[in-house]
Amino acid sequence: MSILVVGSTALDSVETAYGKVEDALGGSAFFFGAAASHFTPVNLVGVVGEDFDLGQLDFLKAQGCDLAGIAVEKGRTFRWGGKYHKDVNKRDTLFTELNVFENFNPQIPESYRDAKYVFLANITPALQLQVLEQVHQPDLIVLDTMNLWINIAREDLMEVIRKVDIMILNDEELGDLTGEVSLFGGAQKLLSEGLKAIVVKKGQHGAVLITPSGMFLASAYPVEKVVDPTGAGDSFAGGFVGYLAANGGVSPENLRQAVIQGTVVASFSVEDFSLNRLKGLTKGDLEKRTAHFRELTRF
Amino acid sequence: MSILVVGSTALDSVETAYGKVEDALGGSAFFFGAAASHFTPVNLVGVVGEDFDLGQLDFLKAQGCDLAGIAVEKGRTFRWGGKYHKDVNKRDTLFTELNVFENFNPQIPESYRDAKYVFLANITPALQLQVLEQVHQPDLIVLDTMNLWINIAREDLMEVIRKVDIMILNDEELGDLTGEVSLFGGAQKLLSEGLKAIVVKKGQHGAVLITPSGMFLASAYPVEKVVDPTGAGDSFAGGFVGYLAANGGVSPENLRQAVIQGTVVASFSVEDFSLNRLKGLTKGDLEKRTAHFRELTRF
Repeated sequence: MSILVVGSTALDSVETAYGKVEDALGGSAFFFGAAASHFTPVNLVGVVGEDFDLGQLDFLKAQGCDLAGIAVEKGRTFRWGGKYHKDVNKRDTLFTELNVFENFNPQIPESYRDAKYVFLANITPALQLQVLEQVHQPDLIVLDTMNLWINIAREDLMEVIRKVDIMILNDEELGDLTGEVSLFGGAQKLLSEGLKAIVVKKGQHGAVLITPSGMFLASAYPVEKVVDPTGAGDSFAGGFVGYLAANGGVSPENLRQAVIQGTVVASFSVEDFSLNRLKGLTKGDLEKRTAHFRELTRF
Repeated sequence: MSILVVGSTALDSVETAYGKVEDALGGSAFFFGAAASHFTPVNLVGVVGEDFDLGQLDFLKAQGCDLAGIAVEKGRTFRWGGKYHKDVNKRDTLFTELNVFENFNPQIPESYRDAKYVFLANITPALQLQVLEQVHQPDLIVLDTMNLWINIAREDLMEVIRKVDIMILNDEELGDLTGEVSLFGGAQKLLSEGLKAIVVKKGQHGAVLITPSGMFLASAYPVEKVVDPTGAGDSFAGGFVGYLAANGGVSPENLRQAVIQGTVVASFSVEDFSLNRLKGLTKGDLEKRTAHFRELTRF
């Protein structure tokens, strides 16, 4: 089953201890698409500027991403620049140029509106609501967000949360959103809004899946060289939703495997800059790492 | 096989969000003994003052702790007082009265010197070396330490490290000791000192076992109410070394199970103040939680 994703499509300039890239593919929708398309076809909705070379997306098409939903608007493409510390959990944003993304007004192509799986990548909650008004009857809607919207658009965000099935967020965002110090306390509070499941990402410490009836604890896959952590969360979401869409939805077993596949795809994503590592990835790579991950954690 | 443990034996006054206790049993050796004795007999070496009521240790004897190595010295028992924040990962030390512990000079009873399993709980590295001089031919020596000794007694500590088999420490201590930002980089550096294994504790984020040939990633068991985290690390060590001593040493499989048993025992320890929860514990409790832990993490 294909997935509709709506999010940012950007050009990132990133510097880490391992080097730097300029104007490389980035943004939540591109990372998500590059990850999820290893599992199932993806329909992408986003906006780029006239300066954007669409040819660089050919590999995404080849992987199974439909790009008919990428609008090309007058102006420059959204650009973000950041520099990571030696401790890759810390970074400084060097610049954010919204450009055409500032007036992003997601139009879902007619052919995408019957989507059964929808991923609302990190954009303003108001735009996420606009997306939901355009889709007909999805089976599963998964939501991502960021601290900024929790702080400045909380009411809109709560409205989105009440309309979706699963929310993916990190432990800090969960604390900000619920005011709870404990991850489990926060998750219970958030579940009470009617969600089927919450995935709490803890970066290098793994992820926790919490549903009204149970819990699943996953470690992070140990990556020796984190070359560039940008997009790790969107890659995780891509593996997670991709697995669910390819395997018939949210059974408890599927949710577990989806968290593992999200973890595995994200572990590849951070091994190179931009989408570079997701680009060359094969089914065999995913299976081999999943088997190794199982070996590292079984008891 | 019995374990020799040498460490602090204290009376703790602790306040948390769930209440407070005064002059309750504490210290690394007591926590370790109360945990490890659920797996195998433990010989305890420590020092208390004349004010200490030895009768309160009857439950430890009943659990399989030999207390012939607890010296009673003129003066008052070591006392520590602390208050935890709402976020239990943060605490303030209210007072530290070393008392008789200031001149602790561990004398290993003749009957303990053939110990095959030795746990050097957190005391000064100089005293840890003194203990090692008194034991004959242990099969396995496991070391704990703290930031203070890394900062003020690094050379002594490195000497101890070169004489032991396994070191248990937390991620922060590993960073301080090795100067490495990454857990895996730090562990490799430390392994090069000749250790058979390192266990890196990450508190609520679990633990990682690293050996020269492999790795094992364990989540933390999710505890709903952390009533008092004091002694969690020593309880972990008790379950870890206890399991190894009871099951014939350091095979890769045993090391995995030992990390799990450490995790499970520690999860009980923090559910009540002082040694209270370790006191009532049964084999059935441990088995039931281990099974639940497996269910929470399998994939």
